[in-house]
Amino acid sequence: MDSLKSIQLKPIGFVRTEAGLEDLRHRVAISEIVVNKRLCRGLDGIGGFSHIFVLYWMHKTSKPERKVLTVHPRHRSYIPKQGIFATRSKFHPNSIGLTIVKLLSKVDNTLIVKGLDAYDGTPVLDLKPYDYWDRPKKIQVPDWWKKLEKERCGDQRFISFQCI
Amino acid sequence: MDSLKSIQLKPIGFVRTEAGLEDLRHRVAISEIVVNKRLCRGLDGIGGFSHIFVLYWMHKTSKPERKVLTVHPRHRSYIPKQGIFATRSKFHPNSIGLTIVKLLSKVDNTLIVKGLDAYDGTPVLDLKPYDYWDRPKKIQVPDWWKKLEKERCGDQRFISFQCI
Repeated sequence: MDSLKSIQLKPIGFVRTEAGLEDLRHRVAISEIVVNKRLCRGLDGIGGFSHIFVLYWMHKTSKPERKVLTVHPRHRSYIPKQGIFATRSKFHPNSIGLTIVKLLSKVDNTLIVKGLDAYDGTPVLDLKPYDYWDRPKKIQVPDWWKKLEKERCGDQRFISFQCI
Repeated sequence: MDSLKSIQLKPIGFVRTEAGLEDLRHRVAISEIVVNKRLCRGLDGIGGFSHIFVLYWMHKTSKPERKVLTVHPRHRSYIPKQGIFATRSKFHPNSIGLTIVKLLSKVDNTLIVKGLDAYDGTPVLDLKPYDYWDRPKKIQVPDWWKKLEKERCGDQRFISFQCI
């Protein structure tokens, strides 16, 4: 079962953005995803989808950070520590970022997207279309998640705060 | 920009399932995700989420298949070829599978999930919780996608066919 020791990936492109940290965090940034030109045909038809998954490599996460197993969600010390697989923390053993973004336009090998929380220069690993199979009818999240969203957004229902 | 040539990942665990191909494809299979024991604490609190993302390595995809740039969606030759980034085909340059599954239970370092379309023995790369940020208010998909779902499901609205 442990026979597969290592997997090698190569970026399919890179993120280009001038957005600041706050805009990235709040998922309102406009970014470009510049795909390797030789893969350009792989983008054919992607414009039919309003949203896509962006999988990227969190290249600023250090090796020690990848060994962390529990964290306070969003660095809030008053929320009990959770396992990293129960959070979207960057401290995952394989530091793959996963974000659903709004696809605004496509120009040649470049996608313009809204809501990507990846830094300028981030290597992109994959792109996938977002469809109805990615929307389970009813979901549940823990109380700490709701609490953090309410803090961020005030009184309004957290579900109404999605920017994308 | 092209300085990062290669990224190395190690599986965090493996899929164990006795489900047949049809059940995997139709997202009704029950599977186990057996996480490496030394990462077990990383699962703390994951049970508060009803659904999680499973990122896995499609280890049966060959090197030539990873160079394919366009495909007929779901192998239907009457649907025009689309770029691989506009499909959930396994023919992506980095063969990372991404599936949202229902989390049924957790026993020590093993998660029991419904709806995973990965084969028995598939290496798992990451797990992330699914939350309301992963549900854009309104999405659009291309006509070919709707057509394929209608074929699969008959007259009923495609949106009602999610099994998870």
